Amino acid sequence: MALTGQNFIGSHRSGNGSKTFQGINPETESKLKPDYVEATSDEVDQAVQKAEEAFNDYRQKSTVNRAEFLEAIADEIMELGDALIKRASEETGLTEGRLTGERGRTFNQLRLFADVVREGSWVDARIDRSDEAPDVRSMKMALGPVAIFGASNFPLAFSVAGGDTASALAAGCPIVVKAHPAHPGTCEMVAGAILKAVEKTGMPEGTFSMVQGISHEVGTALVEHPLIKAVGFTGSFKGGKALYDAATSRPEPIPVYAEMGSTNPIFLLPGALREKGDEVAEGLTNSVNLGVGQFCTNPGLVAYEESDEARAFHQAVADHFKKAGTGTMLTSGIQSAYKEGLETLLQQEGVQLVASGSEDGSPNTGVPHLLKVDSKNFLANDGLEEEVFGPSTLTISAEGKADLIDIAENLQGHLTATLYGTEEDLETYSDLVTVLQRKVGRLIFNGFPTGVEVNHAMIHGGPYPATTDSRTTSVGTSAIDRFARPVCFQDFPESQLPDELKDENPLDIWRLENGEHTK
Amino acid sequence: MALTGQNFIGSHRSGNGSKTFQGINPETESKLKPDYVEATSDEVDQAVQKAEEAFNDYRQKSTVNRAEFLEAIADEIMELGDALIKRASEETGLTEGRLTGERGRTFNQLRLFADVVREGSWVDARIDRSDEAPDVRSMKMALGPVAIFGASNFPLAFSVAGGDTASALAAGCPIVVKAHPAHPGTCEMVAGAILKAVEKTGMPEGTFSMVQGISHEVGTALVEHPLIKAVGFTGSFKGGKALYDAATSRPEPIPVYAEMGSTNPIFLLPGALREKGDEVAEGLTNSVNLGVGQFCTNPGLVAYEESDEARAFHQAVADHFKKAGTGTMLTSGIQSAYKEGLETLLQQEGVQLVASGSEDGSPNTGVPHLLKVDSKNFLANDGLEEEVFGPSTLTISAEGKADLIDIAENLQGHLTATLYGTEEDLETYSDLVTVLQRKVGRLIFNGFPTGVEVNHAMIHGGPYPATTDSRTTSVGTSAIDRFARPVCFQDFPESQLPDELKDENPLDIWRLENGEHTK
Repeated sequence: MALTGQNFIGSHRSGNGSKTFQGINPETESKLKPDYVEATSDEVDQAVQKAEEAFNDYRQKSTVNRAEFLEAIADEIMELGDALIKRASEETGLTEGRLTGERGRTFNQLRLFADVVREGSWVDARIDRSDEAPDVRSMKMALGPVAIFGASNFPLAFSVAGGDTASALAAGCPIVVKAHPAHPGTCEMVAGAILKAVEKTGMPEGTFSMVQGISHEVGTALVEHPLIKAVGFTGSFKGGKALYDAATSRPEPIPVYAEMGSTNPIFLLPGALREKGDEVAEGLTNSVNLGVGQFCTNPGLVAYEESDEARAFHQAVADHFKKAGTGTMLTSGIQSAYKEGLETLLQQEGVQLVASGSEDGSPNTGVPHLLKVDSKNFLANDGLEEEVFGPSTLTISAEGKADLIDIAENLQGHLTATLYGTEEDLETYSDLVTVLQRKVGRLIFNGFPTGVEVNHAMIHGGPYPATTDSRTTSVGTSAIDRFARPVCFQDFPESQLPDELKDENPLDIWRLENGEHTK
Repeated sequence: MALTGQNFIGSHRSGNGSKTFQGINPETESKLKPDYVEATSDEVDQAVQKAEEAFNDYRQKSTVNRAEFLEAIADEIMELGDALIKRASEETGLTEGRLTGERGRTFNQLRLFADVVREGSWVDARIDRSDEAPDVRSMKMALGPVAIFGASNFPLAFSVAGGDTASALAAGCPIVVKAHPAHPGTCEMVAGAILKAVEKTGMPEGTFSMVQGISHEVGTALVEHPLIKAVGFTGSFKGGKALYDAATSRPEPIPVYAEMGSTNPIFLLPGALREKGDEVAEGLTNSVNLGVGQFCTNPGLVAYEESDEARAFHQAVADHFKKAGTGTMLTSGIQSAYKEGLETLLQQEGVQLVASGSEDGSPNTGVPHLLKVDSKNFLANDGLEEEVFGPSTLTISAEGKADLIDIAENLQGHLTATLYGTEEDLETYSDLVTVLQRKVGRLIFNGFPTGVEVNHAMIHGGPYPATTDSRTTSVGTSAIDRFARPVCFQDFPESQLPDELKDENPLDIWRLENGEHTK
């Protein structure tokens, strides 16, 4: 598939703008062909108008058709073959092995949402029949055209055909994707695959569009467009918050699901340090450095009570960090932000550098850094909780249990928190668990947060500033709920009800009938 | 129960402020005793702090305890007896008959949420077990302290112990209520009942507080308090939007569930006009004038295609309106806004007064008004869609089906839309139904929107500007979802999981286990 550098207004290619940019190989700093043409505000408008035109047709497609469409997207992505992996690797510096795994995740995720759509019960159909009162029935229906912003760190699984796309399309919403400027060619290839699936499965053309752009203006124009009804975003706090502010200031405010990353604190409890300090030291080092530290769930804070075991653990981590390899970061911008973040951290009262890997002289490398601080200085300085995106972590030594809980109490919202310990530890520290339940979307026991399973129960979300909507998740099947709202039908004749609400339950879905779960 | 005019900081009464106000009987314009002391910002802070202190204890109460607490509130409200109905009638001008009915609704609503809590499946428990991957489990948990603002038009069912209170307490959130200044005595009596229930069922004291106030500052201080995690509101667009803006501009933005009313369009299809025009004319007049037109779901727009039958219908409505009785409006402010709203409407191009009831000379009466306009003028003037709170409606004559659909296409969000017609009409106008699905929370066939059943399927919500969050409802059992967010537990030992997620399912709730609905 030849790359064109153009925008997709539905299946129509368009490149009317004068501003261009290129993908850049972060390993070599060489520019990749072709030039990408930033979308004009007219092109953004055309894409959204097409999504609006497609909406009623698309949302009323049968659940089987919609499931087949999602499966066709998955298949078309696989059809892109090695060329996709190669281009993604060139644009991101991520290894082909990692990207092949990520493609598998993307494929499975699309198919999982197809299963959810086909099974059908996600619409939360409710029926209240009564002899004395009206017949009332409700179900979730698609919100309307959705704007989606991919992330740089997962160019497949959190980008053009990632979780936001899969869940919005599953819910019945046409989408307009803002391509990520750090991997525009990968975006174009995946967009082409989606459009093939649109055509093959007979979906309306405007179901999918994608605009390119390196300026903030393109994304802002998309979010401010009156026909856009929700926004999905994965990226930085600054980017997500700007979109949230734009969306909530519109004449008609709309929901923004921005997953903005976090520092994912780990709490090492005494039993873990006593029984498996070495194992945790090695696991922590691997988790921090996975993907050159460029995971939303990267553990950036590690708190524990000071003890001999803790000091031994700390020494072991330091040894591992010194030996940890460097890797190429996604972009030069991310690398310089990482370096600046570290410099700022190291200037803070009480923060010390414990260990670091060594530079290998290649461009844009992310060098592992282990830093430490004590709880007193940590609690006195809100800035130490902020994410430094890259392969670093800050350990926090506490003076006993109360101090550890104080650290937890003072946390802002994060995607995850991890407890390492024995089962006895977990009982002894149940009040810490209670505190952490309010702070995060996911609590992990004896594991590292960097693995995020795609299943029904997963929650990849959390209180602000981890996300702009703690009531939702961007990974896992309940992500579909973000793009729908309930609509109620009162005293409608059977023939005019959606299938989901008909008496005979033709879709065979789970429903709440007069308060009883039934099928 | 003697009224004190003070605020409730938990069970502690406090009135440190210098600003006072009184309830006013709108029928006589006489002031009602006692003086009410507006809460100071210190008192607001104390109430929220107490809610925060109560939170972990309250949210971890057993589902049975929480259900019993809600039932005790219902019982304690009944215990207030006639005194409550009398005070509410004095403060609002609503009849004792109406208020007795509303008390029954309030009672039943609290008990329905008790049933939901006791049944337990609302938490959407999900379990993914796997041999190769981590064990992942999630459920919804309470958000934290919630601020609740009651409405003037339902001093019981949408006020201190109304639907927002019932659903927030059911979810496990302590609440701080901002009492409505138009019925402060009613608020105080109900708050006293809730506090008795708090004590009798052993809930932590800060589970419920209530602050009084007539200035916007009190509500703003509440919404801006960093420990408040969500807001429930029923009232005017202006009030709801101001709270939304305050909440989304906080350092930590929080969700606002503001139900701001709407104009609830009715579409009269040709078959209805042909077969039951007289019946609809009478029903419409009653619905518009119910409660002196002071219902969020009051039908303020009636669209139909011009025809001989339509003209006969219109004449019949006019005859009914001339004979329709006046009633006392809730406050002098609401009455003057109603009069001004009508005056503004009548100044608009093409708007004509068709019929009105007659003034009877009492203070604060709401006089029924029937106005008309044609579709051309309606479509040219956005202002004609705005709610005029009171017993008026605007009919819109369209020229054929396409014109009628054009009216629907151009609507903003509303709580409801109604279709009156035969089943054949509904088939012929299925494209109108498709359009209206995007515009409202509830679609009604051959009924009037002013009845809002409290059950599992009811949706009392809708796209902006009807509400600030179309994904939710403020009536019906799914209102509980507004006050919770999902929390995920990965690889937690059985003993440290909440009961809802334990292997043996001790609460016997419906769960999604490896994608299967099971119990």
